[in-house]
Amino acid sequence: MNNAILLISCPDKKGITAKITSFIFRNNGNIEHADQHIDFQTNTFFMRIEWALKGFRIAKKDISKKFSLIAREFKMSWSLYFTQETPRMAIFASKLTHCLYDLLLRHNEGQFKCKIPLIISNHASVSKIAKNFNIKFYSFAKTPKNKKEVEKEEIKLLEKENIELVVLARYAQILTSQVVEKFSNRIINIHHSFLPAFIGQNPYKQAYRRGVKIIGATSHYVTEKLDAGPIIEQDTVRISHRDILSDLKRKGQDLEKIVLGRAVRLHLERKILVYNNKTVVFD
Amino acid sequence: MNNAILLISCPDKKGITAKITSFIFRNNGNIEHADQHIDFQTNTFFMRIEWALKGFRIAKKDISKKFSLIAREFKMSWSLYFTQETPRMAIFASKLTHCLYDLLLRHNEGQFKCKIPLIISNHASVSKIAKNFNIKFYSFAKTPKNKKEVEKEEIKLLEKENIELVVLARYAQILTSQVVEKFSNRIINIHHSFLPAFIGQNPYKQAYRRGVKIIGATSHYVTEKLDAGPIIEQDTVRISHRDILSDLKRKGQDLEKIVLGRAVRLHLERKILVYNNKTVVFD
Amino acid sequence: MNNAILLISCPDKKGITAKITSFIFRNNGNIEHADQHIDFQTNTFFMRIEWALKGFRIAKKDISKKFSLIAREFKMSWSLYFTQETPRMAIFASKLTHCLYDLLLRHNEGQFKCKIPLIISNHASVSKIAKNFNIKFYSFAKTPKNKKEVEKEEIKLLEKENIELVVLARYAQILTSQVVEKFSNRIINIHHSFLPAFIGQNPYKQAYRRGVKIIGATSHYVTEKLDAGPIIEQDTVRISHRDILSDLKRKGQDLEKIVLGRAVRLHLERKILVYNNKTVVFD
Amino acid sequence: MNNAILLISCPDKKGITAKITSFIFRNNGNIEHADQHIDFQTNTFFMRIEWALKGFRIAKKDISKKFSLIAREFKMSWSLYFTQETPRMAIFASKLTHCLYDLLLRHNEGQFKCKIPLIISNHASVSKIAKNFNIKFYSFAKTPKNKKEVEKEEIKLLEKENIELVVLARYAQILTSQVVEKFSNRIINIHHSFLPAFIGQNPYKQAYRRGVKIIGATSHYVTEKLDAGPIIEQDTVRISHRDILSDLKRKGQDLEKIVLGRAVRLHLERKILVYNNKTVVFD
Repeated sequence: MNNAILLISCPDKKGITAKITSFIFRNNGNIEHADQHIDFQTNTFFMRIEWALKGFRIAKKDISKKFSLIAREFKMSWSLYFTQETPRMAIFASKLTHCLYDLLLRHNEGQFKCKIPLIISNHASVSKIAKNFNIKFYSFAKTPKNKKEVEKEEIKLLEKENIELVVLARYAQILTSQVVEKFSNRIINIHHSFLPAFIGQNPYKQAYRRGVKIIGATSHYVTEKLDAGPIIEQDTVRISHRDILSDLKRKGQDLEKIVLGRAVRLHLERKILVYNNKTVVFD
Repeated sequence: MNNAILLISCPDKKGITAKITSFIFRNNGNIEHADQHIDFQTNTFFMRIEWALKGFRIAKKDISKKFSLIAREFKMSWSLYFTQETPRMAIFASKLTHCLYDLLLRHNEGQFKCKIPLIISNHASVSKIAKNFNIKFYSFAKTPKNKKEVEKEEIKLLEKENIELVVLARYAQILTSQVVEKFSNRIINIHHSFLPAFIGQNPYKQAYRRGVKIIGATSHYVTEKLDAGPIIEQDTVRISHRDILSDLKRKGQDLEKIVLGRAVRLHLERKILVYNNKTVVFD
Repeated sequence: MNNAILLISCPDKKGITAKITSFIFRNNGNIEHADQHIDFQTNTFFMRIEWALKGFRIAKKDISKKFSLIAREFKMSWSLYFTQETPRMAIFASKLTHCLYDLLLRHNEGQFKCKIPLIISNHASVSKIAKNFNIKFYSFAKTPKNKKEVEKEEIKLLEKENIELVVLARYAQILTSQVVEKFSNRIINIHHSFLPAFIGQNPYKQAYRRGVKIIGATSHYVTEKLDAGPIIEQDTVRISHRDILSDLKRKGQDLEKIVLGRAVRLHLERKILVYNNKTVVFD
Repeated sequence: MNNAILLISCPDKKGITAKITSFIFRNNGNIEHADQHIDFQTNTFFMRIEWALKGFRIAKKDISKKFSLIAREFKMSWSLYFTQETPRMAIFASKLTHCLYDLLLRHNEGQFKCKIPLIISNHASVSKIAKNFNIKFYSFAKTPKNKKEVEKEEIKLLEKENIELVVLARYAQILTSQVVEKFSNRIINIHHSFLPAFIGQNPYKQAYRRGVKIIGATSHYVTEKLDAGPIIEQDTVRISHRDILSDLKRKGQDLEKIVLGRAVRLHLERKILVYNNKTVVFD
């Protein structure tokens, strides 16, 4: 597969789709997927369009420049991706390794088109798993005191490894703004509740105390405000009075794995547009 | 069907189940359903037990007295119900009548074993529906000023009609403590969100703004704290970026009807025990 | 709202989307929704495109003719709809009226943009409901013997009333080919199982006997083969060993109503394309 | 935890529960869980009862003998289990290892109270995974010709290892009656469809062809008739026309893992009673 993908948002106006699709057609591209959405409240146009590059008359390196003329005309925010450029993803993990394991197994099964060059964790014990999957492992003993300094090292590492996407696999630490800003809309977290219910620590405990009959999990992009970033995916599962806290954790873990896995896949397939702290998810 | 039902909670201790079931057996009762639950955190025992009265050696009117000896021994909170005593239910409705309609249709189909002698609403327009279903209708023009006075009339009416259960079918008014206290654990409300997310007004609008990917509905007993009472039942449905506020409302209405209908049925079948602002729901 | 909608399928080829969207743009139409799909197995292109007619340079009555030039070029199967032309829908009902009621209430709430000029049933008792909702009612005493003759009358009636969509709301009769052919992809049925499991009669009984842990409902277009037409929508609900046949029926009815309601709405919004006995459902 | 568990079924009669619970109480046992169910169609009584052995006046080894007196009186089928006796489970795996991995990780996380002494597979490649988890691995090159002979070796192995439960983790082979009979209600299979739909080979392909809008997974005890044994657990997930066969497989795998995991856990916790080719699942 050798495709190009454009993710676009701009004020809605007549002729956008015609302009974009004609650009691709005139240059001999074959559109394989096209999905658009208009938010009528804000009059905003969103599009994901993917076309085969085989026979396309514009060279890969020149597409950006050529397309920027159309983009300027419609005041677009846009990103261009190529399916042959494999994104690089880093995983931050804690002692709770079920999500880490799940991501690595999905990667092995071919569900994620990406490279995973490194895993970062506070817990040296995670190194075993990294080794099993042949991935470099870095352990940092983060404390409230040295957090900012340690994060600087982590950023250096991420940049050196050319990391595009950071996945927090039940990573128990809050990242400071220096990381969040650098990786805006490129850090995916899994929170173990159906947000916005049960923000913060121990959401299963909170859920147990409130006596809810369903629990959930939410994957979202990380912003500076805790558990308040754009939601990518959520799911829920039924519980009963018979379920004690450990049952909530067990049932919730199945959700966490699925919900995080879906979000990572959507990101890697360039199917997410962030707008107004919300997501447009083309599937 | 001519059964007795006991709902029991008490501190857990050896021999409770043996005592209760022997009491029924010695008196020639046939247990048709028995369900128990122990909350090990608080060491509390819960039970719902239902037996056939055919051939039972104790007369209906004497069962309470006889059972109270066992109850005292174990310091039980308990209630005794007879399936041949049909509970009476009142519905409070607003302009939004989908839940009202749904309850009345379920009642007609035999899903609820109860009588519905009256409907109360702020909106005279609801009278038509009441008439169609041959139910008495009372309209009260409630304002912040006359609320307490109007409620007193409503209470009088409920008492006169011997109402056991009050169902708020998307009733847009908050009841004051004088009603809530009188009908403790006997007022069921439907809130159009997966509580505790989106408490208060316009939960669909709140959900839309937050950009969640699932919406929900919650039925709960009404307590003095808004939307904070014991949750009986919840359910959720998936939404996407394509769904605007009116879609959320439409999709949510299907949930509201189902979740409220289930809660009412569970209450009428004496399957709910309230404890610590949570519910034990035997199904 | 004054929009035009095109539903298109054709062999995939370069330039289809560009041609269609340029056609709309050149004539000053504003695209409000566009969704496309390619089936790579059969190399088939599908599209639903909706644009505002305000300011569109081609008169409503001429759009078909103008568009047919493009259609011919790409060998399209296509249909053109206008949101201002309200489709007419007939409901066939039986003694079990929960789906009938549900459709009528959804219609009243504005969920269906259609007219419902008539209800047809074998059971005279349904006439009451029809009367309540101010809809003409026709009762036919269908028997195996007179079926073909009665159907002819029904067809006459449907044609006289200019009916576009026939909805079988738990209609217990099988239609013969003379009806099915005349209303190809325009008869929606609700079957009370997750097809293809439990085809035919008494699916809840079949489900109960097999001991499944979930039951379902399926809405589909009617074809000559029983319960084998293109599936539009399905949903499921969990059951347990405690649920007896009447519980399955009760739980299933909630599904039936929702699944049928969704299918009817999708059809009326021109979001369904039938292909290879399957559906492409744009939402 | 040092508990005893009784699983009982028998013709319903007055006094069963009283007899059982009094037996436990008189001997100073504390009932921690008790759940009963009556099938009124066949007048059959089912019970799962669990009590703490601490202070119980009957020695572990004598409980069976003592209880058999009650059992005889009521013509019970019954099994007695002790939570301190850890059951031994064997996994049969194929090339598709997602379920195998999932079971092993759940076991590591403490979700399954069992030992897993061995993995059996046709594919030598699975040995790596077994090694990683420190489990003995046996590879058998099964062919239609040598099947019966190979199975005999497998049975010998299972008996030598004192295996109680056999789990087929997407094991692609059909077992013959000699195995099935020996491990009646002790072999759990995962079938990748919502049975009884899509029995046999390639259920995802069958589902794709039929154009269903939901797919499912089913765990069941293996009987001699293919995919027709007592269903333990099922779940479903929504798909759309955009999902091609590989998407069905990917989405389905998440279901398979969850549905198989739940079934294994329920079996190990002695929560399943088989009756009339159906299951009573106490949770």
